[in-house]
Amino acid sequence: MSFIATPQSMHFAEALPLSSGASIRDYTLAYETYGRLNAEGTNAVLVCHALNASHHVAGVYEGQPRSEGWWDNMIGPGKPVDTNRFFVIGVNNLGSCFGSTGPMHANPDTGEVYGADFPVVTVEDWVNAQARLLDRLGVGQLAAVMGGSLGGMQALSWTLQYPERMRHAVVVASAPNLTAENIAFNEVARRAIVTDPDFHGGHFYRHGTIPKRGLRIARMIGHITYLSDDVMNEKFGRQLREGIDLKYSTQDIEFQIESYLRYQGDKFSEYFDANTYLLITRALDYFDPALRYGGSLAQALAVARARFLLVSFTTDWRFSPRRSREIVHALLENRRDVSYAEIDAPHGHDAFLLDDVRYMGVVRSYFDNIAQEQQP
Amino acid sequence: MSFIATPQSMHFAEALPLSSGASIRDYTLAYETYGRLNAEGTNAVLVCHALNASHHVAGVYEGQPRSEGWWDNMIGPGKPVDTNRFFVIGVNNLGSCFGSTGPMHANPDTGEVYGADFPVVTVEDWVNAQARLLDRLGVGQLAAVMGGSLGGMQALSWTLQYPERMRHAVVVASAPNLTAENIAFNEVARRAIVTDPDFHGGHFYRHGTIPKRGLRIARMIGHITYLSDDVMNEKFGRQLREGIDLKYSTQDIEFQIESYLRYQGDKFSEYFDANTYLLITRALDYFDPALRYGGSLAQALAVARARFLLVSFTTDWRFSPRRSREIVHALLENRRDVSYAEIDAPHGHDAFLLDDVRYMGVVRSYFDNIAQEQQP
Repeated sequence: MSFIATPQSMHFAEALPLSSGASIRDYTLAYETYGRLNAEGTNAVLVCHALNASHHVAGVYEGQPRSEGWWDNMIGPGKPVDTNRFFVIGVNNLGSCFGSTGPMHANPDTGEVYGADFPVVTVEDWVNAQARLLDRLGVGQLAAVMGGSLGGMQALSWTLQYPERMRHAVVVASAPNLTAENIAFNEVARRAIVTDPDFHGGHFYRHGTIPKRGLRIARMIGHITYLSDDVMNEKFGRQLREGIDLKYSTQDIEFQIESYLRYQGDKFSEYFDANTYLLITRALDYFDPALRYGGSLAQALAVARARFLLVSFTTDWRFSPRRSREIVHALLENRRDVSYAEIDAPHGHDAFLLDDVRYMGVVRSYFDNIAQEQQP
Repeated sequence: MSFIATPQSMHFAEALPLSSGASIRDYTLAYETYGRLNAEGTNAVLVCHALNASHHVAGVYEGQPRSEGWWDNMIGPGKPVDTNRFFVIGVNNLGSCFGSTGPMHANPDTGEVYGADFPVVTVEDWVNAQARLLDRLGVGQLAAVMGGSLGGMQALSWTLQYPERMRHAVVVASAPNLTAENIAFNEVARRAIVTDPDFHGGHFYRHGTIPKRGLRIARMIGHITYLSDDVMNEKFGRQLREGIDLKYSTQDIEFQIESYLRYQGDKFSEYFDANTYLLITRALDYFDPALRYGGSLAQALAVARARFLLVSFTTDWRFSPRRSREIVHALLENRRDVSYAEIDAPHGHDAFLLDDVRYMGVVRSYFDNIAQEQQP
């Protein structure tokens, strides 16, 4: 049984300038905190979320015993990131559909629901919004920023945008940018959503529709790329859903893997916002700190001052170990302090959310060391 | 400039029993032949096609200089499969949309267009239909059956269904069955088509619609899986379509890879039949000769009498070298005569259609040897 978490929210009246040149004002960020900020203000850890997650990182909600946060195995009392020692902050990003201001909310300038007019937000914009939240919470320098996948990109971006405001970055199953193949999968998912007749150019709220067909396809594609070929073969293989007789049908479910994917797609389409999906995949596409340095990641990371832990997983083909090693090499070129663990795990990209003794052990040791630093 | 090819067709009045228990009668197969059957009838080579191809394997059509067949680099006078020495037969499979009887044709029992009622066909059914065509063409024993990808599955199945009727099987970039991940990608593509409101349960012909949205998504997914991550990075990388300034849009094209995929999807949706797409991906899913032998491929292949050439490509993650090696090992367990070439090529699954000196050299040598055998 986990501890009780309480969602909170913070309103920001002042405009936040965005990478696109637009800005957003009168927005709210949903967040949660676990543990206590120490007197010196040195034990805060910011946790950044990936595509399908939120500020609800750990714990359960009152009266909802199965509502564990998405990284509840990693964060909490006695966990690798021990909330008895650290003050952990989870924040829902702008544009999300889980509590912070997003496309389903009203634009204060027009009174109309944003829909497709919600401004495009980038990893850098999210980091700026997170920094403002920390100001309000009275957190000066963070002990660490951590995240997996897209969350890892935010942790990496923190080291470049606010190098003096953090001591450590923990970047798990991430990459310095997306490959062409990554962008391609995002684009197919987006096209499935945008070409769904129920999308109505992103203003489906006012039509009373939801582009569920597109969301289902997007999620099915996502799921395939989160898993490894091996783990799919182990979990589903070529098992038929019903007994051993084939139905010889092109539209009915024959194989277990089909049933699983359809279920995941259906579930997702019930709760995820289509415009949020577009925004978040675009933030992934755009992230590329080396771009303004002619592609030199080493030059881009020269400004970073944090110490780093990078973790990757051998069967992750979405954010492969090779991509993490690029970051490691660029940091070493800058003589930065960097630890790197490549975990031999069968679960593909999903591994970053799962229990693995070595993975949890590496993170635990790293945070134990951070806690030691804080001793006087 | 290639030689002139002439499409032909053969009508079959008698019913063909299918794996599903259904049968199909009054059907037509489109085919082409190149070269001449020798007096002894020993030089015939059957070429089987994959998902998006047809009987038009080599040569160009009269007055259409850019209409090269899909394996024109492999087959023709002086090519690796030399039509000066071999009589090559290309045949369009049942259910296709390129000339043979398919879902867009009328069911002779009802007079109505088949649409979604076209019977589900398997690799084994296609092989049986091909064998009947050979009967009509007066071809007894084939010198070889060859194919890539799904075409390779047909070549493999020939060795099991008609072991005495062929001397060689050339199986390129293929597999003994699909993995769960392969089935998963097929299923997403099918769902995109089936849930397109213009699909109308597969009877879109009578509604005057075409499920182009679904076909586009299906093709985009396909294209991603045909290419390697490396070749995508080399060809497209993170290049923007227009200059260097980002547009900050979730729906407009930003990256070249997006432009390429949308173009490929659009083109495909103009000419490919949605029901054919469902049928062909299902034939891929179902192929699994080891199934009735409790999963033992070695037992399944015990009946084969052909000599084999298998070819795979290092960066092919759709039909990886590992899958070809499974076939090689199962053949070796049966003490069959098998050659295997693993070609180090960057192009992913697409490599089987592309020029590569080593690949072409291996196939040329193999067919040179077959030609030698035919000498008295």
